Amino acid sequence: MQTLGRHLIAELYDCDADALDAVATVQAAMRAGAAAVGATVVGELFHKYAPQGVTGTLLIAESHLSVHTWPESGYAAVDVFTCGGLDPRPAVAVLCGHLGARSYRVQEIVRGRDADISAGRALRPDDVVVVTELADPQILR
Amino acid sequence: MQTLGRHLIAELYDCDADALDAVATVQAAMRAGAAAVGATVVGELFHKYAPQGVTGTLLIAESHLSVHTWPESGYAAVDVFTCGGLDPRPAVAVLCGHLGARSYRVQEIVRGRDADISAGRALRPDDVVVVTELADPQILR
Repeated sequence: MQTLGRHLIAELYDCDADALDAVATVQAAMRAGAAAVGATVVGELFHKYAPQGVTGTLLIAESHLSVHTWPESGYAAVDVFTCGGLDPRPAVAVLCGHLGARSYRVQEIVRGRDADISAGRALRPDDVVVVTELADPQILR
Repeated sequence: MQTLGRHLIAELYDCDADALDAVATVQAAMRAGAAAVGATVVGELFHKYAPQGVTGTLLIAESHLSVHTWPESGYAAVDVFTCGGLDPRPAVAVLCGHLGARSYRVQEIVRGRDADISAGRALRPDDVVVVTELADPQILR
C-alpha cells in the first residue's frame, strides 16, 4: 500500500471563544471536517482542560484529524492528515466555519516514503506547498 | 496562556515490520516517547488496521503524539506536538529505538499565534527549522 499522505498544519485565529471551550462544539466541528473530506472515522477521543481549552483527535481509516484550542487567545491548532488520495483541505474550511475563525494560516506537508512521495506528484494539486525537503537530519543530535 | 507550540513531523524509515504491526509494541513506544519529554498523558486511543498497520494517538496535557504505521513498507509517520516549554525531540529518538528505525527524517514547525511565536524565540534551540512562514493563505481557495 502506498505511504503517500497529505498533512495540513492549520492555525486558526480570532475564533469564537465559547466555541473553542465547548467539547460538544469542537467535537461536532471535527466530525463535520472528517465528513467533508470523505474520511471514515474509526475512533475519537476528546479532553477538556481546566480552566479552559479542549483537545481532541479523530482517528480515521486514512490517518487523523487533531485539534487543540486556547479559548483565551481565540486560537486553535488543527491538523488534518489524510492518505489514500483524500484531499484534506475541505476539513480545514469546515473547521474554520464551525469555530468562527476570522483568519487562518495553513501549510501542507507531504508524508511518506521518498519513492511514494515522488510517484504521487500527480495526485497533488499545483498549489500544494511541499516543505518535506527542508527536513534537517541533525535536528535530534 | 501562551500558545507557543513545537511540532515535530517525523518520518521513520526501515523500521521493524513486526513492531509496526503490533498494537502493544506501538503503544509502549508512544508511552515511552511521552515519558521521555516529560509529558502528562490525559488519554490514549489506538486502532489496528486490517490486514496490517496500527494508528494511535496520545493526548497529553501539552498537546499530542500520533503515529501511523505501514508494516509492509517499514514506514511510520510520527508527530510530536508539545506546548508549555517541553522539548519534543527526545520522543522521536525513543520511538526510533522502539520501532527499530534505521533512518528517519524530521522537521520542526512552530505553532501558535504570531506574537507568541515571536516572543518564544528564546525557548527554541538554534537548530530548529522554522517553516511556519511558508504558509500560503491561498491554499484553501
